[in-house]
Amino acid sequence: MTVRTAVAGASGYAGGEVLRLLAGHPEAEVGALTGNSNAGQRFGALQPHLVPFADRVLEETTADVLRGHDVVFLALPHGQSAALAEQLGSADEGPLVIDCGADFRLADPADWERFYGTPHAGTWPYGLPELPGARAALRGTRRIAVPGCFPTAVSLALVPAYADGLAEPEAVVVAATGTSGAGKALKPHLLGSEVMGSMSPYGVGGVHRHTPEMVQNLSAAAGRRVSVSFTPTLAPMSRGILATCSAKATPGTTAERLRAAYEKAYQDEPFVTLLPEGQWPATASVQGSNSVHLQVAHDPDADRIIVVGAVDNLTKGTAGGAVQSMNIALGLDEGLGLSTIGVAP
Amino acid sequence: MTVRTAVAGASGYAGGEVLRLLAGHPEAEVGALTGNSNAGQRFGALQPHLVPFADRVLEETTADVLRGHDVVFLALPHGQSAALAEQLGSADEGPLVIDCGADFRLADPADWERFYGTPHAGTWPYGLPELPGARAALRGTRRIAVPGCFPTAVSLALVPAYADGLAEPEAVVVAATGTSGAGKALKPHLLGSEVMGSMSPYGVGGVHRHTPEMVQNLSAAAGRRVSVSFTPTLAPMSRGILATCSAKATPGTTAERLRAAYEKAYQDEPFVTLLPEGQWPATASVQGSNSVHLQVAHDPDADRIIVVGAVDNLTKGTAGGAVQSMNIALGLDEGLGLSTIGVAP
Amino acid sequence: MTVRTAVAGASGYAGGEVLRLLAGHPEAEVGALTGNSNAGQRFGALQPHLVPFADRVLEETTADVLRGHDVVFLALPHGQSAALAEQLGSADEGPLVIDCGADFRLADPADWERFYGTPHAGTWPYGLPELPGARAALRGTRRIAVPGCFPTAVSLALVPAYADGLAEPEAVVVAATGTSGAGKALKPHLLGSEVMGSMSPYGVGGVHRHTPEMVQNLSAAAGRRVSVSFTPTLAPMSRGILATCSAKATPGTTAERLRAAYEKAYQDEPFVTLLPEGQWPATASVQGSNSVHLQVAHDPDADRIIVVGAVDNLTKGTAGGAVQSMNIALGLDEGLGLSTIGVAP
Amino acid sequence: MTVRTAVAGASGYAGGEVLRLLAGHPEAEVGALTGNSNAGQRFGALQPHLVPFADRVLEETTADVLRGHDVVFLALPHGQSAALAEQLGSADEGPLVIDCGADFRLADPADWERFYGTPHAGTWPYGLPELPGARAALRGTRRIAVPGCFPTAVSLALVPAYADGLAEPEAVVVAATGTSGAGKALKPHLLGSEVMGSMSPYGVGGVHRHTPEMVQNLSAAAGRRVSVSFTPTLAPMSRGILATCSAKATPGTTAERLRAAYEKAYQDEPFVTLLPEGQWPATASVQGSNSVHLQVAHDPDADRIIVVGAVDNLTKGTAGGAVQSMNIALGLDEGLGLSTIGVAP
Repeated sequence: MTVRTAVAGASGYAGGEVLRLLAGHPEAEVGALTGNSNAGQRFGALQPHLVPFADRVLEETTADVLRGHDVVFLALPHGQSAALAEQLGSADEGPLVIDCGADFRLADPADWERFYGTPHAGTWPYGLPELPGARAALRGTRRIAVPGCFPTAVSLALVPAYADGLAEPEAVVVAATGTSGAGKALKPHLLGSEVMGSMSPYGVGGVHRHTPEMVQNLSAAAGRRVSVSFTPTLAPMSRGILATCSAKATPGTTAERLRAAYEKAYQDEPFVTLLPEGQWPATASVQGSNSVHLQVAHDPDADRIIVVGAVDNLTKGTAGGAVQSMNIALGLDEGLGLSTIGVAP
Repeated sequence: MTVRTAVAGASGYAGGEVLRLLAGHPEAEVGALTGNSNAGQRFGALQPHLVPFADRVLEETTADVLRGHDVVFLALPHGQSAALAEQLGSADEGPLVIDCGADFRLADPADWERFYGTPHAGTWPYGLPELPGARAALRGTRRIAVPGCFPTAVSLALVPAYADGLAEPEAVVVAATGTSGAGKALKPHLLGSEVMGSMSPYGVGGVHRHTPEMVQNLSAAAGRRVSVSFTPTLAPMSRGILATCSAKATPGTTAERLRAAYEKAYQDEPFVTLLPEGQWPATASVQGSNSVHLQVAHDPDADRIIVVGAVDNLTKGTAGGAVQSMNIALGLDEGLGLSTIGVAP
Repeated sequence: MTVRTAVAGASGYAGGEVLRLLAGHPEAEVGALTGNSNAGQRFGALQPHLVPFADRVLEETTADVLRGHDVVFLALPHGQSAALAEQLGSADEGPLVIDCGADFRLADPADWERFYGTPHAGTWPYGLPELPGARAALRGTRRIAVPGCFPTAVSLALVPAYADGLAEPEAVVVAATGTSGAGKALKPHLLGSEVMGSMSPYGVGGVHRHTPEMVQNLSAAAGRRVSVSFTPTLAPMSRGILATCSAKATPGTTAERLRAAYEKAYQDEPFVTLLPEGQWPATASVQGSNSVHLQVAHDPDADRIIVVGAVDNLTKGTAGGAVQSMNIALGLDEGLGLSTIGVAP
Repeated sequence: MTVRTAVAGASGYAGGEVLRLLAGHPEAEVGALTGNSNAGQRFGALQPHLVPFADRVLEETTADVLRGHDVVFLALPHGQSAALAEQLGSADEGPLVIDCGADFRLADPADWERFYGTPHAGTWPYGLPELPGARAALRGTRRIAVPGCFPTAVSLALVPAYADGLAEPEAVVVAATGTSGAGKALKPHLLGSEVMGSMSPYGVGGVHRHTPEMVQNLSAAAGRRVSVSFTPTLAPMSRGILATCSAKATPGTTAERLRAAYEKAYQDEPFVTLLPEGQWPATASVQGSNSVHLQVAHDPDADRIIVVGAVDNLTKGTAGGAVQSMNIALGLDEGLGLSTIGVAP
């Protein structure tokens, strides 16, 4: 089986990572690479690490260019995916459209409108296969909404606790991210001189757009509304998310029950590693890989559970999750083109 | 007034930072520099950035060497300060002894014994002048316990909220630290190859030794016991702490009341800057300075207050706090030898 | 064809990178993993990024453990390979032994003895396939000496110029390396606190042990002795070498002739990319890949040629070169298990 | 004596560093702070580390605003200083104008026109006091051209060798710089995601604009034209330059004579430290300081001298050199407001 793929937004970090993975995918063939402001440029000037595509020329992002592929990855600013997807065909025919952006992640239109300020475009099957029920929704679909990078880390870190009733429905999350999470936008605070040697928070106080997505996933697992106090911080590294998640323990929760819940939840998940007791995740260990590393603890003084998760925001957090979901949708082996091994040190 | 100072543990990061500040202090004269394993070495080989002391030779850390100075800074592993201080004279005579270590920070012997596993050595006046009542206890004292770097950041971030009754007594703190906080210990996880490009937590689940110190300070401010769920993370930078602190808001707490409490608490504090609304702290801005930068928010969905504080762990978090406290103890201008300006970018 | 491999020194950076590549090699099967001081430990505690091997236990490095594999990679401190190789069988039978260390790289015993101070152990076929004649020597061999990381970068950068007579026989090389080049040794100057935000040279003045290897390779290309003034610098990054190489131009050398020489030399080399004019190499572009990125210039004022090369010291500079050479020795496709794509950003 | 100063371009990195130093200068008072695109903004939003100036508002850069100060620092893009200086008064009256830009550094109009493509504006006394004759030219002047950051490092590294006839007149320099050397320009290659974990060269082949300035300084020392092959590289750090400089040794040059030349040249220079034999410079050791750290070696095989120098590009390389020169011009103690101590680690 040869899967002909196209990547819209191929000059950005997310699009580049999709390409990196597709280049190593045994069934994928890479067709059109498109962009907007950079269209017409030699691809090697934009993404010099992607050597096999260096002599390609970036095409304009249009439905005409993207049509005729089996799978189209959209790595675009939010708000651009709906119209493009519609032009490419309905959800019953046409290509598999995989949106790495936010447009189709949220089920509740009110959430979307509050956080994005535009009309809700709809809801697509959610590309986080490790969530309960997710694989069934992905099989055979022609539409996939790739989760946000923070929600990927936080949901995998907290869903087992909520699914097993071990945590009270008020989660507190502080997550450090590498700068690639902010994309290639030319903003002063993303300059190397500002970022190196510095940590700083942003989007504090419940305003980060990934918050409702976390609430949605954790609430689904808990069977009741879970609030999430989410503070993202920008860390001096290019890649990686370290999500420190905690919640008040429910009565009867112990370190043993906590650990057992995570062992059970992830024992058959190839891309989720619950580390042995005493070993804590480090983002370097998952760099460039599709792995999530988790560790859990119960603090008896504060009576809270703490779960720390590490992912690569661009791989499992975006492009890896996208390819994993594509594999499921197409009936391929779920791990094709993906590695559990990080590029460390 | 000339203050003759000595630094025990001068080859470490904390001791080196004390020296850096003393070299710029208009009233200080630097006498003995001591160490243990490095005694006998040329100082410039150990701390090449401290040019004026390069040709000194590190002496052995003994009471004989340290005696005869007006002020003795101890930057030693915990457990070594008590005996040395006693040999230097009683608290009524002899030099001002400033312990940058943990030995005399905790008031409750049970806390000490639980977290350090050795008998409690005592409690000294606490060198965080911005805490209520701290300056009075420091004036004229011959003993100062310099706070831990994390408790410095966290206490300054949360005390006003607890003092004004704006937060429920269960704080959640996630704090990223630069690697110098771990000292010069030769441990594999502190190698540059491991640290760069990586974030990782440590001491998770209520076991970090700075936890009871935070509990002590916040409880004092709240007038009742405050629990602290504390997770430190190691960040790829040499210096700096970014403490993200939150707690459930008490009924009636609003963003306005919160901000007002911090404005009132710190309006006359030269080393604490409450940033204008919308601007968040970055550790680079306080690098090498004695400043603390704070910002506050109220998340109405999670109904939590969030306070983020940035300090330099070596300066305000250790050596700067020590020098500031020394100035108070000796009746000097509190800011002598200290700068509010960070070395950025 | 299934190739059964073993890795001695698997807990180090070089050994870990060999494993990372073998895990993705379609014909390789990973047998014994050995070490010395860490033998008996769970592998996942030593190399957490190598998830598929996490539950293995590191064995002792002995010939008994290593015997019975088709290929044995040695990633050991220099001086240990000769005895071990001999115990594994002669060069005519027994496994293919691939030494990632220095022991068998130098042809001239005098060079070895001068720089290493021990008797010369011999010379093995040299694992830099892109050098003239190298592939022929590698085919069918049972012994491979993997080049040093610096000589890999510098030889690929300068050999075409010397082979075509474009450069005078006095090369000047300044090469920045990531800290993984120094291994996991617990030395103070390799601590993250020391390395981050800092550049420093080491081994200055012709004393670095990779110097005679560069001289050997460049002299072979030039057909006369080439001297190399080599200064390595330690850069604040985990991986990567940026080698800035220059030499006086020979009469008649022009920018055009220079470029043509490199185009000709590398037009059929999949792992060497001569970048388009105006684009310069960056180590991030080759991170984790087996690629070398090169660019050339002629400075008419100084009348020098400048060639800058970027490699990943652990991949093409060590483990990638080792696997590439293994593929040739075993008659496999040369690029199996190797990627030209870097993990960027 | 109170010196009233103004800083034009105060929102940039160079201007910010000038301000940081002036804030600690016992005789300086800071008047107008000006900028262009940022005029009208609260200064604390632009330079949050400069706490004492946070509530100032950035004014427009005009002669009217700058007039009336004793000293005016210009930290502007090249080409803007000449007109402004003229409006501020002649070189015989009016304020001391200190240009941190390039406009007045080069003596030879042909050099200027070739590298900058505009008419030459003139030549001002050169603000590198450690060069032979420089202090005499600075005393009492009303015009100072602050050297470029690379020429500062390279000139101090090589002038003694050329002055003493120890090096042939063809220097080869490879210098790594922190990203602040490129200013706050919003260019893709300066994004943190691109810079961290990566080294790359730029301006290769004799085209970097600092080249003629190095040629000028070294030629003056040698008494004949010295060519410089200069390759700058961008390093993953915010600050610092590490300049690796070498040249063929002249007949009779030995390691001893080399070292003696540097000892003699710098024995009375407070801001230049020739490190003890065996110790090599690191940029972290001079971070934020006005120090230059140097070390020398002779490579007998290549018969070259190698001199490595470390400076902070923003401090000694720009703002520190500017303040040091101001002190000389005004007859103040040369070291006022400057420190030899770096902020390390």
